[in-house]
Amino acid sequence: MSNLLIKNVRPMGKATVDVLIKAGFIVKMEANIKPEPGIETIDGLNQLLLPGLVNAHAHVDKNLLGLGWHSYQVPERRISDLVNYERNYRLDNNISAKEQSAKEIEAASLLGVTHIRSHVDIDIDAGLQHFEGVLESKEAYQDCITMQLVAFPQSGMLIRRGTVDLLEEAIKLGAECIGGLDPSVIDRDPVKHLDTIFALADRHGVELDIHLHEPGKLGAFAVELIAERTKALGLQGKVVISHCFCLGQIDEAHLDDLITMLLENQIAIMSLGSANSNFPPIKKLYEAGVLLCTGTDGVRDTWGPYNGIDMLERVKLLGYRSGFYRDEEVEMLLDIATYGGAKVMKDDDYGLEVAKRADLVIVAGDTPTHAVVDQPVRNFVIKSGKIVAQTGSSTTQ
Amino acid sequence: MSNLLIKNVRPMGKATVDVLIKAGFIVKMEANIKPEPGIETIDGLNQLLLPGLVNAHAHVDKNLLGLGWHSYQVPERRISDLVNYERNYRLDNNISAKEQSAKEIEAASLLGVTHIRSHVDIDIDAGLQHFEGVLESKEAYQDCITMQLVAFPQSGMLIRRGTVDLLEEAIKLGAECIGGLDPSVIDRDPVKHLDTIFALADRHGVELDIHLHEPGKLGAFAVELIAERTKALGLQGKVVISHCFCLGQIDEAHLDDLITMLLENQIAIMSLGSANSNFPPIKKLYEAGVLLCTGTDGVRDTWGPYNGIDMLERVKLLGYRSGFYRDEEVEMLLDIATYGGAKVMKDDDYGLEVAKRADLVIVAGDTPTHAVVDQPVRNFVIKSGKIVAQTGSSTTQ
Repeated sequence: MSNLLIKNVRPMGKATVDVLIKAGFIVKMEANIKPEPGIETIDGLNQLLLPGLVNAHAHVDKNLLGLGWHSYQVPERRISDLVNYERNYRLDNNISAKEQSAKEIEAASLLGVTHIRSHVDIDIDAGLQHFEGVLESKEAYQDCITMQLVAFPQSGMLIRRGTVDLLEEAIKLGAECIGGLDPSVIDRDPVKHLDTIFALADRHGVELDIHLHEPGKLGAFAVELIAERTKALGLQGKVVISHCFCLGQIDEAHLDDLITMLLENQIAIMSLGSANSNFPPIKKLYEAGVLLCTGTDGVRDTWGPYNGIDMLERVKLLGYRSGFYRDEEVEMLLDIATYGGAKVMKDDDYGLEVAKRADLVIVAGDTPTHAVVDQPVRNFVIKSGKIVAQTGSSTTQ
Repeated sequence: MSNLLIKNVRPMGKATVDVLIKAGFIVKMEANIKPEPGIETIDGLNQLLLPGLVNAHAHVDKNLLGLGWHSYQVPERRISDLVNYERNYRLDNNISAKEQSAKEIEAASLLGVTHIRSHVDIDIDAGLQHFEGVLESKEAYQDCITMQLVAFPQSGMLIRRGTVDLLEEAIKLGAECIGGLDPSVIDRDPVKHLDTIFALADRHGVELDIHLHEPGKLGAFAVELIAERTKALGLQGKVVISHCFCLGQIDEAHLDDLITMLLENQIAIMSLGSANSNFPPIKKLYEAGVLLCTGTDGVRDTWGPYNGIDMLERVKLLGYRSGFYRDEEVEMLLDIATYGGAKVMKDDDYGLEVAKRADLVIVAGDTPTHAVVDQPVRNFVIKSGKIVAQTGSSTTQ
């Protein structure tokens, strides 16, 4: 457990303070803390101090980082085509989930990410090999990144017999969450799909994180079914709906009803916006009190070229697409990309304050919005009080 | 006039060649060119060779780079409110167009930009001070950047008496283009607005580059009026409509009619996409043969935090928003951000081929799309055969 004294930093752009860390936790945050013998001191040079970035929606098993440029290939942008192409590509080319996930986790840490919730593909062709590979990386990087894994039936579950058993195996191996995917569009039976994953969650005491790309009223129906099951099984506070584009595609009255359901059942929404379709109205949800988080989604994979590893870039894109021009709006997104994700991941020790674990990032910038827009090099990344990266390079190897 | 031998580069990601430059022009581009005595040789390390990036729509006079973070302030996002706030802010704070434009041009050059067309605000409060400031920067950076200036009535023209005379003064001082702005919404008289600027262009032999934010059918009407005047005055090939969001907001039949008019009158379209409204359908226009260019728009100014100086970031955003996933689609955008802009700027010597001027960028990346997505440091920026920047730092001072 690390001790560290950080001199001269501006937490979230506020007045300059020093930060004293003992045994990995922040014990003092005030001006002019005196150095103590035996405690390493670094100078923050009056730069910004941000809490560790939280990527609450990754797919660290499926990137193709370092393997040469992958030209996008799928003729139609249907989810099922994208999924099938990817599953076959990974098997045909022997892509190692262990090696690829290690590359992505390492790169994320250099960019100030201290928490990742990653979905991991589980299907009857690959079996548990992707999951087992990511489990090894999770272990290898445990000093840099707090990780949660979601056992994710990317290829469908009911339509591919044997998948449910594999998901259950993944839970036994350590998955913190059970995933789901478009219960009507992919699995063709929303009730059976949701009943199956909710039963798994209930039986094993894990949480749920469900991909929902279904549009408009169809997606809204799935949200209702999810809320009903959350209530029936007493799983309030343990369910995330990821993407949930439908919240940006229905009328206001219906949206208000769904927001009430989300709040009553403490269901969180993960949104990373969308390139060119409507997506959840972030500000309305935030102001209503819905718990929100965001993430990178899969990066540098067969789905397309655009997603990057940097959570500050994600915040910038989400702000750009949401029409957020004011600093306070961008800071709301930064709150979602830090505290929101940490709440979803149930990290009670997370936070930029005394008595919380020192998961911190120091970057240049006048204000947090300035850092979001510039995406400067992360001068220091600190996890549990230990410096894990400095000016973009790892300090742990 | 510079001589240079570049070893081992991949033009647009194709097979590795050497490039021999004499007197600023490419004289050979083939494998294994032998070094000549007295000609500097650099090793491209098998990296990508791109033609110089062309920012065909900048506002270099109005950035606030280096002046501390500017928090966005305007209550309503109406163009007139944004314009008035900005005009007053710049005057009240004595923002120097000369100093600010120099900062932006310098930063652009480090990022591989070799051409800039910049609009420059001209209004009856500031007079010609912004224009004169940018003229000085244009002169100061003439070895790094080919620049064109547009005399731009940002605050309106008919609604502010005296503006037309100032625009004419700017043309006499050296503006290559006369600008215009939302002839119905801002100036309240589309015919008189357009007749005025077309008459100025005709009288002084300059080109036109007209900002058109007007939506849907109103914007389409302005496009028709512009086409009619282009034809009547024989100004084919000398008119650009910038933004022209309306092309993405009308029915297909009307769009097809407008495309016919654009082609008949050789009117080019400048688009940088849009954060959250519909914008011109880039691929349809490109495939129809409409000349397209793109740019950064104003960066780090009072209009909002998102626009950056890097043209590769612009291409990435435009691809993201256009739903372009394939390499060939991204390369189409790169063509627009290089050759398209150079055609608009009438630079006949531009191009990545023998007998063209050596305006070049060397960057890491497997393919051009890879470079767009990663926005890597520009390892070499070459203007007229002279290395003007190396790994992100200027080599000319």
